[in-house]
Amino acid sequence: MRFAVLGTGEVGRTLGGRLVELGHEVTLGSRTKDNPVALEWATAAAERARAGTFAEAAASAEMVVNAVSGRVALDALRAAGAENLDGKILVDVCNPLAFQDGEARLDPVESDSVGEQIQRAFPHARVVKTLNTVNCQVMVDPGRVPGAHHLFVCGEDAAAKGQVTAMLGEFGWPAERVLDLGGIQAARTVEMYLPLWLTMMRRFGTADFNIEVRRAG
Amino acid sequence: MRFAVLGTGEVGRTLGGRLVELGHEVTLGSRTKDNPVALEWATAAAERARAGTFAEAAASAEMVVNAVSGRVALDALRAAGAENLDGKILVDVCNPLAFQDGEARLDPVESDSVGEQIQRAFPHARVVKTLNTVNCQVMVDPGRVPGAHHLFVCGEDAAAKGQVTAMLGEFGWPAERVLDLGGIQAARTVEMYLPLWLTMMRRFGTADFNIEVRRAG
Repeated sequence: MRFAVLGTGEVGRTLGGRLVELGHEVTLGSRTKDNPVALEWATAAAERARAGTFAEAAASAEMVVNAVSGRVALDALRAAGAENLDGKILVDVCNPLAFQDGEARLDPVESDSVGEQIQRAFPHARVVKTLNTVNCQVMVDPGRVPGAHHLFVCGEDAAAKGQVTAMLGEFGWPAERVLDLGGIQAARTVEMYLPLWLTMMRRFGTADFNIEVRRAG
Repeated sequence: MRFAVLGTGEVGRTLGGRLVELGHEVTLGSRTKDNPVALEWATAAAERARAGTFAEAAASAEMVVNAVSGRVALDALRAAGAENLDGKILVDVCNPLAFQDGEARLDPVESDSVGEQIQRAFPHARVVKTLNTVNCQVMVDPGRVPGAHHLFVCGEDAAAKGQVTAMLGEFGWPAERVLDLGGIQAARTVEMYLPLWLTMMRRFGTADFNIEVRRAG
């Protein structure tokens, strides 16, 4: 499949790199055409890997992954262009996190989420929120963490969630470990999990952890 | 041990009932002396069970459990009286949850928590936040959920956290399943987990679930 991965940070490069390894065509999108990080990534990855602007990446893609920071996600997606997102699955993996005086803060929080903001701003994109509850190394290699630990998906489009679940399966997440939380409003609940994740990460001294949801029956 | 359990709702009655079964003396505290729910609970439970005002309950207790709703916790604790809390372990199990137009909202959220508010308002109480991440039936009977799922504790007083962990052990939570998140500021991170918990509860159709934190190494 042809993917656009928007964002040249560690999350974007890790997701894009794994998708290339899996045989997909990936354009790593950034604000500028000549982003050196993106160009180096594309050179090192494989011939299926390209670098381009947000708009170039999204235009050629069948599925778009938003891997920029949550605080700039809407700007990046506007640069990608609504016409390049319409009808496409838009996988949102970001968290609206910033640090103020050393403390993590989310914006928006509670009464809204970046996942919902994106769906409102691009009503014809098929937004699926997922992967934001684990470190990017765990995203593409769940075996780093022992046990049958879980991911969440949410979004308005059931078929889109199904296709994203299939992509997660390629990363190593069996479908039974992907919990569907319902519509895109649930994005606020998985984004609000981040402060607990950060606190655990600091206490454990590693990002190689995740939660397994245990239930009766 | 002599416990005060503040709050006559399901959480307070369940925690108080289990503590009585375990052989502890428990006064279930409420706003008024003649709360019929508290009196009925005390009659049904055992001779170690009593009902009283918040202040009566706290005055006679060695350990105080705050099991009122987070939105009224500070009022209930003021009624209990700072002089009845000073130097005592104050176990805060509440969530600052309210429903607006059918949606769960937390207040405070993110930059503060009810756990922190309580510690600030009662600086001589030894506040330990715990148990707020599971349903009250699971609090006192973790075997309702399969697996080695976890609880969290946080607070400023390490000895207090140790004593609370021992109490959790009596409920059936081995110490290795109680994760210490550090100081009381971490209360905001476990309170912010609640929206995800609520979403899962609605999707699963049961409150008999919990998370097991899985980590490498």
